[in-house]
Amino acid sequence: MELIPVIMSGGVGSRLWPVSRETHPKPFMQLPGGQNLIQKTFLRASSLDGVVEILTVTNRELLFKTEDEYRAVDRAHHSLSYILEPFGRNTAAAVAAAALQLLETRGPDACMLVLAADHLIKDQAAFATAVANAVTLATQGWLVTFGIKPTYPETGFGYIEADAFNKLAGGQKVARFVEKPNLDTAKAYVSAGNYYWNSGMFCFRVGTVLDELRAHAPDVVEAVAATLEASRLSTGKGYSCRALDAETFANVPDISIDYALMERSSKVATIPCDIGWSDIGSWNAVSELTHEDENGNRFEGEVLSHASRNNYVNSEERLTALVGVEDLLVVDTPDALLITNRAHAQDVKHIVQQLKSGGHTAHLLHRTVHRPWGTYTTLENGERFKIKRIVVKPKASLSLQMHHHRSEHWIVVSGMAVVINDQQELMLNTNESTFIRAGHKHRLQNPGVIDLVLIEVQSGDYLGEDDIVRFEDNYGRVDN
Amino acid sequence: MELIPVIMSGGVGSRLWPVSRETHPKPFMQLPGGQNLIQKTFLRASSLDGVVEILTVTNRELLFKTEDEYRAVDRAHHSLSYILEPFGRNTAAAVAAAALQLLETRGPDACMLVLAADHLIKDQAAFATAVANAVTLATQGWLVTFGIKPTYPETGFGYIEADAFNKLAGGQKVARFVEKPNLDTAKAYVSAGNYYWNSGMFCFRVGTVLDELRAHAPDVVEAVAATLEASRLSTGKGYSCRALDAETFANVPDISIDYALMERSSKVATIPCDIGWSDIGSWNAVSELTHEDENGNRFEGEVLSHASRNNYVNSEERLTALVGVEDLLVVDTPDALLITNRAHAQDVKHIVQQLKSGGHTAHLLHRTVHRPWGTYTTLENGERFKIKRIVVKPKASLSLQMHHHRSEHWIVVSGMAVVINDQQELMLNTNESTFIRAGHKHRLQNPGVIDLVLIEVQSGDYLGEDDIVRFEDNYGRVDN
Repeated sequence: MELIPVIMSGGVGSRLWPVSRETHPKPFMQLPGGQNLIQKTFLRASSLDGVVEILTVTNRELLFKTEDEYRAVDRAHHSLSYILEPFGRNTAAAVAAAALQLLETRGPDACMLVLAADHLIKDQAAFATAVANAVTLATQGWLVTFGIKPTYPETGFGYIEADAFNKLAGGQKVARFVEKPNLDTAKAYVSAGNYYWNSGMFCFRVGTVLDELRAHAPDVVEAVAATLEASRLSTGKGYSCRALDAETFANVPDISIDYALMERSSKVATIPCDIGWSDIGSWNAVSELTHEDENGNRFEGEVLSHASRNNYVNSEERLTALVGVEDLLVVDTPDALLITNRAHAQDVKHIVQQLKSGGHTAHLLHRTVHRPWGTYTTLENGERFKIKRIVVKPKASLSLQMHHHRSEHWIVVSGMAVVINDQQELMLNTNESTFIRAGHKHRLQNPGVIDLVLIEVQSGDYLGEDDIVRFEDNYGRVDN
Repeated sequence: MELIPVIMSGGVGSRLWPVSRETHPKPFMQLPGGQNLIQKTFLRASSLDGVVEILTVTNRELLFKTEDEYRAVDRAHHSLSYILEPFGRNTAAAVAAAALQLLETRGPDACMLVLAADHLIKDQAAFATAVANAVTLATQGWLVTFGIKPTYPETGFGYIEADAFNKLAGGQKVARFVEKPNLDTAKAYVSAGNYYWNSGMFCFRVGTVLDELRAHAPDVVEAVAATLEASRLSTGKGYSCRALDAETFANVPDISIDYALMERSSKVATIPCDIGWSDIGSWNAVSELTHEDENGNRFEGEVLSHASRNNYVNSEERLTALVGVEDLLVVDTPDALLITNRAHAQDVKHIVQQLKSGGHTAHLLHRTVHRPWGTYTTLENGERFKIKRIVVKPKASLSLQMHHHRSEHWIVVSGMAVVINDQQELMLNTNESTFIRAGHKHRLQNPGVIDLVLIEVQSGDYLGEDDIVRFEDNYGRVDN
């Protein structure tokens, strides 16, 4: 029985702004104690029995970053594959794409375990047991959901009603799915005992889910099949990868797998679970991962407080001082600061909407940007200058390029660099520097076996990222 | 009649942390609309009739900075003098030192106008009238205070009770000084009509104040006289300057001019004023300088808000987002963030005490440090590197120096530099760079007529400020 965890890494998590952003979404958020959500999801998936491949559905911009995060924790060298969406098209499209690709590569009997990249599950053993039960039901032709035993009447989740008279091995048949309830209804669900939080995780045979999708949402399957046909599956570099064709993908209906399939099919079962699950849906949920002090405060970073209670502060870099405040959630990043309180944590998404409609970039980018060759971090945007810290991976190389309006000054602070500057090639050691005049073709390479860290100071009248002419590139970006 | 405004620039203003710090205290705080408090105080003083000199009592660390601020706004080229205290010794010592120096240079009939460097006065014409009245009374031998007509029952100020039956030209004789009252007493004072806020501004003849100090606080006068005797008055550089001898100054009693003199003398008068005075005593007071929007919010900097009312945000650099919060005061600086509320604004000083007792430097320094040749701003402290923006004034020069453990890389982003590097001298134009190896003697000069702005990247294993050997210096710092 081949098991393929399918990690869905699509959402942005705008309620977790300013840490979560479009180019650094929620799965990449660092949690207290190291590792981010996608690494935890990867490790959780890869330690299950029978896993033959891990398939991730994400987008082109996040591919290198996801690879980096997986490789940093993957000791077992799993077979990895990626489906890259040109834009988000909801979960039915993502599940259908994964199923059709797996039908191609693994056949109809392979079993898919659909996981969100940004959930937390504390009890790995209970999770593994739940998955084993789910696989058993999946092989019998069920579409299996994971129903979380509710610990309180949450109004932010949908619920699954289990059919109390229809027990299956390790699970139950599903009677119906219900929308997010009001508080009274939620309380009734919790006391009824056969209602569960819909976790958004699923397990099914590739053949089953495709048959059922064809029956209940044929337009989704057809449009996704056409997209896959127009999209090349490439292999090499240690993983296989399929970038979905945008033109055909645009025809796929924007619908969730719950609406498209789960609420319509009669073959849905649920595994009731008590696995320490959280969807980390707001800063309230994140705050609970941090130790509470005697005043009810939870602090990540350097915080001083006076006469302040029940606050959460998450500050990467700066000292934060609280004086006489209560119930605040404070999240500080190098370029943006959020101050809200426990009652309004869900409303942070309104700020992200304001940023989008105002054309601001603070919902998109962080200071550190990932590239195939490494990363760059903007340290300072000054008048007539910009400063970046550039980290180049061993043996990696930036493109051969030229800028019309700026000179670039490179100072090696760690490792070693080979620099092509106009007609010359020179080797720069740690603590050495060079400069590239505007108009000179240049290229930066790391010939070594450790990271090259260099400080780049750009100087000139115009410092936009679009002042770049690329001549040669190892990553196919010449025509960008 | 010679009038000498004496600007007392001693206090730190710890209730205005994190903007106000020991090396960048409250008088240097930038206000909305440009200019800082000490510049406003300087301009207010220098536009008065009869001013022959402006004497500032401050400390050694703030001399260059104060000079810079004055010169930036001084079109009339006033005669400037400074008394530099080695440490704060309260206001009686400062007034006595100013009076004794003025006795020496101007004689007993010169009139002193003692002003705090960090107060705001909105109505300059009313202030000028009040000062003219004060000078008239001072020449008659009165110690003149400025009593502010109370607009509400403030409990944070001391009050002056005027003797209603003893009117003087433009003022009244003082019956008594009273300590900070409780709210009921303050209300009674406001309705009584003859109580005024004690503004801490004074006007008196040099001869009068010294006679009265000798009568009521002879120990202060004697100890300060001994200090002046041990402290050289130097002239040149466009101003005169007296750095008080620390050993003798340590013998001066630590007492305020109110306790030492005003509450004891029978020659005290007050000028009742309605001049738009504020001592800018907390972030509440600062917030009132900013325009209020329709939700009662006052924002300096880029702020987005949702469902938030009556907040004040002061952020130099970063985007701040408020969601569902009220009555907060948020002050954001590059290295420290304060969050408090209107009811607790006075308690910010507790944070400064925590910083001091914890050995933290965030109460001392800002990222920008003033030097006689210009300024430097630390942009980034990294592993194995440190980045500074250095601004060198026209014609100024850093010392000839050498570092054992770091190389320095200089990139000119504006203006022109002359660099001495080991045996070589070279000229660097805008957008050019050079680097100084560890162990090489070097010097940086600005030969031009506009500011030289350069980015310095230090690289090496040890980057402490103490790795410096100075060989020659234009500012007498070789033996530092």
